[in-house]
Amino acid sequence: MSENIVIIGAVAVGPKAGCRFKRLRQDANVTLIDQDEIISYGGCGIPYLISGDVSDESELRSTSFHMVRDAQFFKDDKGITALPATKVVRIDRKNKIVHALTKDGQEKELPYDKLVIGVGTKARELNIPGTSLNNIYNVGNMHDAMKIKQMVTSGQVEKAVVIGAGFIGLEMAEALADMWQIDTTVVEYCDQVMPGFVSKNLSFMAQRKMEAEGVTFYLNESVEAIEGKDSVEKVKTNKRTLDADIVIMAVGVAPNTELAKEAGLEIAPGGFIKVNEKMQTSDPDIYAGGDCVEIMNLMTGKPGYFPLGSMANRQGRVIGTNMAGGDSVFNGAVGSFVVKTFDMALAGAGLSVETAQKNGFDAVGIQVAQFDRAHFFPEKEIIFLELVVDQKTHKVLGIQGFGGVASGMFARINAVASILQYHPNVDAISNLELAYSPPFASAMDIINALGNAAENFLEGRYKPVAFDEFDECWQNREKDDCIFLDCRAYADARVFEEKYPDIWKSIPHNELHQRLDEVPKDKKLVLICNTGVRSYEAQINLKAKGFENTVSVGAGVASLKQCGIDFDTDK
Amino acid sequence: MSENIVIIGAVAVGPKAGCRFKRLRQDANVTLIDQDEIISYGGCGIPYLISGDVSDESELRSTSFHMVRDAQFFKDDKGITALPATKVVRIDRKNKIVHALTKDGQEKELPYDKLVIGVGTKARELNIPGTSLNNIYNVGNMHDAMKIKQMVTSGQVEKAVVIGAGFIGLEMAEALADMWQIDTTVVEYCDQVMPGFVSKNLSFMAQRKMEAEGVTFYLNESVEAIEGKDSVEKVKTNKRTLDADIVIMAVGVAPNTELAKEAGLEIAPGGFIKVNEKMQTSDPDIYAGGDCVEIMNLMTGKPGYFPLGSMANRQGRVIGTNMAGGDSVFNGAVGSFVVKTFDMALAGAGLSVETAQKNGFDAVGIQVAQFDRAHFFPEKEIIFLELVVDQKTHKVLGIQGFGGVASGMFARINAVASILQYHPNVDAISNLELAYSPPFASAMDIINALGNAAENFLEGRYKPVAFDEFDECWQNREKDDCIFLDCRAYADARVFEEKYPDIWKSIPHNELHQRLDEVPKDKKLVLICNTGVRSYEAQINLKAKGFENTVSVGAGVASLKQCGIDFDTDK
Repeated sequence: MSENIVIIGAVAVGPKAGCRFKRLRQDANVTLIDQDEIISYGGCGIPYLISGDVSDESELRSTSFHMVRDAQFFKDDKGITALPATKVVRIDRKNKIVHALTKDGQEKELPYDKLVIGVGTKARELNIPGTSLNNIYNVGNMHDAMKIKQMVTSGQVEKAVVIGAGFIGLEMAEALADMWQIDTTVVEYCDQVMPGFVSKNLSFMAQRKMEAEGVTFYLNESVEAIEGKDSVEKVKTNKRTLDADIVIMAVGVAPNTELAKEAGLEIAPGGFIKVNEKMQTSDPDIYAGGDCVEIMNLMTGKPGYFPLGSMANRQGRVIGTNMAGGDSVFNGAVGSFVVKTFDMALAGAGLSVETAQKNGFDAVGIQVAQFDRAHFFPEKEIIFLELVVDQKTHKVLGIQGFGGVASGMFARINAVASILQYHPNVDAISNLELAYSPPFASAMDIINALGNAAENFLEGRYKPVAFDEFDECWQNREKDDCIFLDCRAYADARVFEEKYPDIWKSIPHNELHQRLDEVPKDKKLVLICNTGVRSYEAQINLKAKGFENTVSVGAGVASLKQCGIDFDTDK
Repeated sequence: MSENIVIIGAVAVGPKAGCRFKRLRQDANVTLIDQDEIISYGGCGIPYLISGDVSDESELRSTSFHMVRDAQFFKDDKGITALPATKVVRIDRKNKIVHALTKDGQEKELPYDKLVIGVGTKARELNIPGTSLNNIYNVGNMHDAMKIKQMVTSGQVEKAVVIGAGFIGLEMAEALADMWQIDTTVVEYCDQVMPGFVSKNLSFMAQRKMEAEGVTFYLNESVEAIEGKDSVEKVKTNKRTLDADIVIMAVGVAPNTELAKEAGLEIAPGGFIKVNEKMQTSDPDIYAGGDCVEIMNLMTGKPGYFPLGSMANRQGRVIGTNMAGGDSVFNGAVGSFVVKTFDMALAGAGLSVETAQKNGFDAVGIQVAQFDRAHFFPEKEIIFLELVVDQKTHKVLGIQGFGGVASGMFARINAVASILQYHPNVDAISNLELAYSPPFASAMDIINALGNAAENFLEGRYKPVAFDEFDECWQNREKDDCIFLDCRAYADARVFEEKYPDIWKSIPHNELHQRLDEVPKDKKLVLICNTGVRSYEAQINLKAKGFENTVSVGAGVASLKQCGIDFDTDK
């Protein structure tokens, strides 16, 4: 059995692996090395430290019982030797020795029986002029975090530019704009926020929400230079120049794998360390985990990359168990995520429709809008879900959603996230058994309605039109080749019909069977109601009467408004 | 293909089956019969109608777009003929005719190609004197609901007695006590609330919460008579006499299966209609669903009974699909539930530990208390989860929890509810991949911690003591055969040590390795901290040093306080 465990990297996976191992092997020695003097912190909390939700940086380094996780804590509470501010210079696999150097130049030789590498990532840098100016930060470690916080709390920042609209970019934009009222602009190279994670529809909802809270977005734009004297003053994109007192670089991360590479461990394309299900590298005595390793994507069956503190923690436990002689596996991830955007959130699991298509699936995304609880219950809100399904196999490939932070959206995403590993068919979603009572769910819950809508689509009964297609119809409405048929009560439809008399027609669904002769026969009918229920029903009714050229606005006016369609009906 | 569909019962399963069928078969005729004039209502919402959360009874009968689902609605919106206030007197299977009688005595003969029975339940009655007095209600239909609401809103009720502490009993007790400040007493025959659904530990949490809100509970008590002149005045139990202006009977339901029985359809023990996975009765042209049918319990593999509006709706859709020639199945239920108790809730899925044991499993319940979100995030709360596992197979049999209505508890229960049908092992819970970011979850989420605790228990590392066993130790603390070893910081432990100097000993976990000589060697050690993390670690440390006679308080002081243990430390 192993006696000496050395762990390189003391943020998430390392401390977890060490503590788990030590609990199983109280007699063994565990040494935890990190080049930083700050160890074992919740890096995912950095945006909330900057926003002020977390008041002090020590909270990100403390246990739930308010003890700071420093070297003394690891010694007293965990029986582990932590060596902060100590840089590993070489792994000597032949002699099983880690060579390290303390901050004050002291050389250390640490023999190991098992070694763990959990060295995380470094921020990607843009290959543009000006990136070495002052006040350009990524949020990769606590030092950056504290410098940013110092700048914003001391009033040095009036304008901020965030480069990148992924997780960190959105969280940082919220942090700066919300608490500190900083004029914040996000520049993103792709044509949507959270590219690769959610459909354009859902991305628009999050973007519009953040815009309403004062954040500016420039999509489809690349940053070409950062300018300033000593510190950043301007950010030049291919379309404009933005003033900036601070720049947050959130354009992705690259694994820290030099050590592993030099030690001759197998490295995957992209630089990630290759590990097996037991989290062993190509050297069975060396384990690796966290942001620096490649993990199987359970939805594609291909190698994937999931840099999340939650993954690192669970992998750490697997490593600790296996080093102690156990038999634990980490067989991959489905890619669950959630990102808060002010009082709303985007969340998902599995593949987005675009990512699924890129991976060769015949994927489609079906959207539903519905109250998260019984519609007669006073506290409730409309949430938006999108189910990504394979049209060939009817397998569920992913789910994404947008809703209030306190809404039932998160519970629905998690329910599907949990079963994705079992590769369910759409009918499993139609019949997913969530806990029901009116203050928590609907009798036909939105998650079941989502499965039902997907099934109706796959069987050809339901022809939805999503936001981006609707937007195209709407922008081209003067061409007069389609009619928007409003299935809501006249009270809701009236203002639209009055504003757009040539193209907007009100026939409440319950009057449709008596007013069929008013339905235009020679035009495409865009059927619309509030959340898509009545327009779907109208589509079926109309088809039975010979009207085949119809589409139903999937998640109704509710979703179009959330996406930012300007019907201009107030004027 | 079928042309005439007749549906008996128009509350939940019936309307759903009819509407789904009609959408698939626009050319066919659907007739929906109910003996009541009020149809298609959300019966699960009745407690919230009485509480005032739902202001008007019509809301329970309306769509999300505010149309009342009456006969006119079914005609105009759904193309379905609804016949309210029409009682079916006989099913003539040979000639495929339903014989019915309208309220005004008109006989009707309705030929069918396919028939659906969704006639629900009637309330069970206690075989005691006085049950026919006025002002004794169950909450089985809208008429009772409106009468109760009329009584409470007109100030006729000062004291209420609820008989039965299951779902309806607790919801009704909350409704009466919360909004109307009625002096409400719940009498329950079993020794806990929600018997069969949650462990005693969790039941105590809900009970204490409701007691703190003013509801009185008498457990282990049977009602022997109800007394009064015309209306109820007193409820006599085997232990006391309670004044009552109203009595809510919530002692369970029995299926309405006379019609099916008379028609010669196969009936299960208990009176439920037998159906196959396609929801067909023993007559393949007759379907049945909702509260009157027997459904497979997917956890026991035995027939079960799940009277929930959510089940009825999903079954209705399956029936509608199959009647139209589709191939849809409803293969059973894991028994997910949630019940609101003021601003807290009990929820679960699968088997409780007692129910699992009764079904022959070698079951144990493992409890964990943890914040629902990152402990450093400002909005968070401690939630309580219990995982029920089979000690032989390490299979997960169920999960239950208690937490705030807006907490992450509901999302955790749903995540496990969703995978129970796949019969996961404990390690699937340790590695369940919920969406993570600090405002929504912990990096090592409570659900993973729950799996980890169960695994540590199954492997013999973790010896927990649950509330009821702790309570026994605590009640017998004068016997001096155990020591409560408090692993929290001294600031937290001090008041306990001062109050109980002979039995309560403070050794903060981080000091334990230096103060081992202070640990009593000859007594059972009850290790305790706030949520069980440090006491578990202390148990492992102590075992390595030869202290084998220890138990760790599973979910810590947090759970004991929630269960109502009176440490009396304020005095």
